[in-house]
Amino acid sequence: MTAPTPATALQLRSLVQDDQTIELFLDSVPVPEPGPNEVLIRVEAAPINPSDLGLLLAGADVTAAVASGPPDRPVITAPLPPAAMRAMKARVGVPMAVGNEGAGTVVAAGPSDAAQALLGKTVAAAGGAMYGQYRAVDAGLCLDLPPGTTAVDGASSFVNPMTALGMVETMRMEAHTALVHTAAASNLGQMLNRLCISEQIPLVSIVRKAEQEDLLRSAGASYVCNSTAPSFMADLTAAVKETGATLGFDATGGGKLTSQILTCMEAAASAGSSFSRYGSAVHKQVYIYGGLDRGPTELTRNFGMAWGVGGWLLTPFLGRIGLDGLVRLRDRVRAELTTTFASSYTDKVTLAGALALDNLTGYARQATGSKYLILPNG
Amino acid sequence: MTAPTPATALQLRSLVQDDQTIELFLDSVPVPEPGPNEVLIRVEAAPINPSDLGLLLAGADVTAAVASGPPDRPVITAPLPPAAMRAMKARVGVPMAVGNEGAGTVVAAGPSDAAQALLGKTVAAAGGAMYGQYRAVDAGLCLDLPPGTTAVDGASSFVNPMTALGMVETMRMEAHTALVHTAAASNLGQMLNRLCISEQIPLVSIVRKAEQEDLLRSAGASYVCNSTAPSFMADLTAAVKETGATLGFDATGGGKLTSQILTCMEAAASAGSSFSRYGSAVHKQVYIYGGLDRGPTELTRNFGMAWGVGGWLLTPFLGRIGLDGLVRLRDRVRAELTTTFASSYTDKVTLAGALALDNLTGYARQATGSKYLILPNG
Repeated sequence: MTAPTPATALQLRSLVQDDQTIELFLDSVPVPEPGPNEVLIRVEAAPINPSDLGLLLAGADVTAAVASGPPDRPVITAPLPPAAMRAMKARVGVPMAVGNEGAGTVVAAGPSDAAQALLGKTVAAAGGAMYGQYRAVDAGLCLDLPPGTTAVDGASSFVNPMTALGMVETMRMEAHTALVHTAAASNLGQMLNRLCISEQIPLVSIVRKAEQEDLLRSAGASYVCNSTAPSFMADLTAAVKETGATLGFDATGGGKLTSQILTCMEAAASAGSSFSRYGSAVHKQVYIYGGLDRGPTELTRNFGMAWGVGGWLLTPFLGRIGLDGLVRLRDRVRAELTTTFASSYTDKVTLAGALALDNLTGYARQATGSKYLILPNG
Repeated sequence: MTAPTPATALQLRSLVQDDQTIELFLDSVPVPEPGPNEVLIRVEAAPINPSDLGLLLAGADVTAAVASGPPDRPVITAPLPPAAMRAMKARVGVPMAVGNEGAGTVVAAGPSDAAQALLGKTVAAAGGAMYGQYRAVDAGLCLDLPPGTTAVDGASSFVNPMTALGMVETMRMEAHTALVHTAAASNLGQMLNRLCISEQIPLVSIVRKAEQEDLLRSAGASYVCNSTAPSFMADLTAAVKETGATLGFDATGGGKLTSQILTCMEAAASAGSSFSRYGSAVHKQVYIYGGLDRGPTELTRNFGMAWGVGGWLLTPFLGRIGLDGLVRLRDRVRAELTTTFASSYTDKVTLAGALALDNLTGYARQATGSKYLILPNG
């Protein structure tokens, strides 16, 4: 059925070098033997998520990237700004494998029952190092995809679905009842929109373009605010008031958006009430879970004293809900992989294609609506 | 013993007016009859805390304040910037009484046993409206001061002591083991220093002047960092590493100090460990409890993803610990009022003196080391 497994295969590597540059290249590595409870996945699809870019690009100045090497083994070199270089000190000289998640066919398995049960199946895994042709992972980390689901369908079955579910679970754990989300026309944002509709959770989606408003509205979104509209603050305040949202998830991080969300929440919370010198007693929270804008976060603090801003990351959230919670969420993703948790891609590239300059600058831009999928064996 | 209680007495008022100005004046008001469980306090001392200034000044431009009226009934008028005016809309035309806390003699009491038991005693209270000559408050809200303690000794027995204790309690409730504090040479900072020494809690005090370093060191502080020193970031990182502090309380709010504290905590937490793309897993928290700098808070987010910044306010904290907790903390303050929780004042003024231009600009400046006490019957 599948081709025989080769002895060596390609693996994408990211290497921070002493001379303040990063080198991206394809390494030829031995294909591993699966351990007793491991399976060997022939990786057929792996998405480029924003959460992969920190490891992949290390903060390099992509606009100054230079390509070299033959077409099938391209090499990218790009300079690291001094601040990025300081932050990456521990990475100098260590070629890192990249790619949080992906999907493919199990072509070999260790002797355990769990591993053997997956032989020949299409599975998804979030094991890291998925931008390579083969990857051995623990059988327990694999999601066996439902019959009829392709590796492309299952490539993004972890990071975005779990993040969307994590936002909803966090909302419930911290006693909020509605959500605000930014960069909301992203694959993740569209997923969250479908999830909130199915759970009847009021969601306020913030976007930056008219076509993104249309996209979400046509997908059933009730509250969509355009942050470039002159009426943005009034629009957001009205939507927050109507939904009662006191929790936001901000993908941008830098600039004033987090602060604006808190300001509108405070305006909504204190509308119609008498003067209180410390603002409303309603706790308003925004979690920054991405860094589309790497600039500083600017908080104007005109939203009283009952507020919080913080980092939100999937891994500690999963630690918080424990193994039971993880299994519950994963089962749900599996059941709704081609509906609620479906992903779509604007660009599909090979491993070599991922290191073509025009593609690199494309995904590094992180434009909402643009989404790359790597087909390592394509 | 005391003079007979008059029918009317003076009360300091703060009035936001339609013409975008604030007016501060002394109002002649009827001295209230105490209710069944109330006592009437002849207020003898009330501090001007930073937390009083928001209500008192309403964000007015004090540098443009103008004085009028006779010497015993001065009137201050000052313009409100447009942003302050927007925030104060609900206050227009409502003359507000000011003064969170103070102390004095109980000169009349309602018929309840609790009220009668306080008659003639020197008590402290945090009832608000304490910048006046008389104030009726519920007997249950009064702290009867230990024998030999004057109203001046007891004037600041609530806001600063409870805030210092609240920081330590919050630290324990949120599983931290050491603290960072800014504007640390303030009355509150000195109090927190004594409290942490007595509780053996490592405290990192951040100040801005060499004489403030000396003041705290001579009071036994082990870790004092000067934020104006070129070595500040290295000094703070070293102190945070040695103490293990992962919780900070920032009185300034605006600018980069909160961000710098998180940066140093992250540097201390990740020192010696290998590269982690999302930073250390150690949760780092800074609460902003004051606004000495009204400018925006600027967060550089070079401290990983496990971080939080939020507002901290005494009232919700007290709600969180409940009545039992409040009583426990209040008993401790009473027992250590002239030691751990002692306050000192650089300026003592009458009610009219509080409305003298030079005093107004003095306390509005909120310079660490300068502290005003109003003697309403002085």
